[in-house]
Amino acid sequence: MAPRRVTLLTDFGTRDGYAAALRGVLASRAPQVLVEDASHEIDPGDIAAAGWTLSRYWRLYPPGTIHVVVVDPGVGGARRALAVRVDDRFLLAPDNGVLTRVLADAGAFHCVSIEHPHNASEGISATFHGRDIFAPAAARLANDRTIETLGPLVTDPVRLPLPQPRSTAGRVTGEVVHVDRFGNLITNVPAGLVEPVAVVHVGSVCVGAVRRTYGDVGEGEPLALIGSAGLLEVAVRSGSAAAVLGTGRGVEVEVVNAVE
Amino acid sequence: MAPRRVTLLTDFGTRDGYAAALRGVLASRAPQVLVEDASHEIDPGDIAAAGWTLSRYWRLYPPGTIHVVVVDPGVGGARRALAVRVDDRFLLAPDNGVLTRVLADAGAFHCVSIEHPHNASEGISATFHGRDIFAPAAARLANDRTIETLGPLVTDPVRLPLPQPRSTAGRVTGEVVHVDRFGNLITNVPAGLVEPVAVVHVGSVCVGAVRRTYGDVGEGEPLALIGSAGLLEVAVRSGSAAAVLGTGRGVEVEVVNAVE
Amino acid sequence: MAPRRVTLLTDFGTRDGYAAALRGVLASRAPQVLVEDASHEIDPGDIAAAGWTLSRYWRLYPPGTIHVVVVDPGVGGARRALAVRVDDRFLLAPDNGVLTRVLADAGAFHCVSIEHPHNASEGISATFHGRDIFAPAAARLANDRTIETLGPLVTDPVRLPLPQPRSTAGRVTGEVVHVDRFGNLITNVPAGLVEPVAVVHVGSVCVGAVRRTYGDVGEGEPLALIGSAGLLEVAVRSGSAAAVLGTGRGVEVEVVNAVE
Repeated sequence: MAPRRVTLLTDFGTRDGYAAALRGVLASRAPQVLVEDASHEIDPGDIAAAGWTLSRYWRLYPPGTIHVVVVDPGVGGARRALAVRVDDRFLLAPDNGVLTRVLADAGAFHCVSIEHPHNASEGISATFHGRDIFAPAAARLANDRTIETLGPLVTDPVRLPLPQPRSTAGRVTGEVVHVDRFGNLITNVPAGLVEPVAVVHVGSVCVGAVRRTYGDVGEGEPLALIGSAGLLEVAVRSGSAAAVLGTGRGVEVEVVNAVE
Repeated sequence: MAPRRVTLLTDFGTRDGYAAALRGVLASRAPQVLVEDASHEIDPGDIAAAGWTLSRYWRLYPPGTIHVVVVDPGVGGARRALAVRVDDRFLLAPDNGVLTRVLADAGAFHCVSIEHPHNASEGISATFHGRDIFAPAAARLANDRTIETLGPLVTDPVRLPLPQPRSTAGRVTGEVVHVDRFGNLITNVPAGLVEPVAVVHVGSVCVGAVRRTYGDVGEGEPLALIGSAGLLEVAVRSGSAAAVLGTGRGVEVEVVNAVE
Repeated sequence: MAPRRVTLLTDFGTRDGYAAALRGVLASRAPQVLVEDASHEIDPGDIAAAGWTLSRYWRLYPPGTIHVVVVDPGVGGARRALAVRVDDRFLLAPDNGVLTRVLADAGAFHCVSIEHPHNASEGISATFHGRDIFAPAAARLANDRTIETLGPLVTDPVRLPLPQPRSTAGRVTGEVVHVDRFGNLITNVPAGLVEPVAVVHVGSVCVGAVRRTYGDVGEGEPLALIGSAGLLEVAVRSGSAAAVLGTGRGVEVEVVNAVE
């Protein structure tokens, strides 16, 4: 039988031992599970970035996978801790909107509020629910395979507004929703809204027609293309579009599909 | 049977292939073992930070786990290479004090000096004992389950001074022992020395009463709280206390438990 | 039976979910495989650095290991995607020279061009062949154990020039080929070309005789030594030679083996 996998996505970094503490709890309570680091390098408290990142991989893992997300600036406060089953995968996360994209992309979901960890032998800190609530719940879930026993039903998980592109008379106006390590500007404009003849503007800069890949322009030149998420991206060949264009998350992007 | 785990804590980073070299040695010599990265991002040569980080996770892993620590500025010199069994876990590390907190927190321990790696087919470099001594010893330990055959008994492992808080007339004076990724200032003052009415000072700044969690103050405001290590911490909500207060490791923290 | 391992070496970082996407594909298509991160922190597009890093660990892993390397600035262009079997290990990488050191160090190799991924259910993006070509091919290879079915034979994989040291009349002139996290300057001068009495110059600075290890000089002082790759290195004890000497990759290093 294939081993069960738990993935971890946090803003902990690795150097303080917080991520290793989650792994230790999982190794003790669900020793057969394979734990994989998705990332611990989310900027501290950046819920939107964590939600974006999660959206890139959660469904590529096989059914049964447990995805743990701990980007949790409200830890110890009133926010709930959620366990969600969706498209046969499980997700554990604080109820702060980090699952917004997952819930938007998926079909029906089942969601509960994690009441208290199983065998919380060390008590529960007010500031480290990753170790004290989410990792124990993930271990329990890996063993029991059901979220129903973790706590009561939740029908209203927090959803953050996701900016949507607007279409008007041959133009689509969207915005940059993520800047990746390469400085690529990923927008919220889906491929289906971009005509082959489209010309793309970022802020006040025209980056020209939509290309297929980086090599279609010269070194250091900007380009627009449909990226691996099926969304319009703006890049610079062998460079950083974010640095070259001086832009970042939230900047407006305009797609001119037709010349009037 | 549950798989055996080896954890790695180093200052190697990952980009030079040093950490992967340890993993390769382990994969070759103890292929059934699961290797987990605790961190490779300890600042180069920062023995105190590595010892702190190790203290946060080593005992959360199950009995039988082998924790390898290679922060080793004295590599190739006279320092010994240690293998320790304590509370049913194993630790391998240079004898430079990085295990001080483990030995202080634990009960009885058994310690040997690693004499030479088993099957050192490639010789032993003077600068990479992680690959040439610690990883082979970890593989041997994973297979043999005993440290006695690794080398002769050591009764005097190096222990570094751990700064202790001082209590006097309603005041406790401690210091910052670790600054984490979030900029939280973690002190050496245990929860038991902090009264509910205590007021906390960092250097010359009063950060007020002890709170329960970050949400108990406004955004950007400092607070004191008992952190997940059971120690007094100073934080800034949605910010970095280290940056806001301009302080770091070694700075004095004073807890005023009673007003005279 | 020992589990099969796949290692990942990329310039993706972890925070955008690209590395996790590769892991998800592997978990779905080859669930028994253990996936290990060699590094995701190669500088964007730095083929030479990735090739160096790979050279430090690929052969330490056991036969049957599959090493995936995705540092791929030419993604989506004409460059081929390679699968190589060499010394009983497998390597998957873009045909951009990143395997130059592996091929130089190894004996006979067998190489094919990956034609199309097996079961490419989601189509193939122009910018993320790690997810869409290399990870599926690695999964197929983990299951089938043969590269022959991946695509047609390639006899001319791209090889980049590797700078070679020059020996003349008691002197060896080489250069810095890699700077590691510690700031150590690793040269292309093999131990066999360095006499015990040699004196080493980096650029215009004399760093003295060849020592055995860091502790052989005072704190903050530079030294030359034979490093763990069997090559001449220049280091600074408890410091960074790159920072102290103001040098980096490509800088000339001269070894004076004999005084005339």
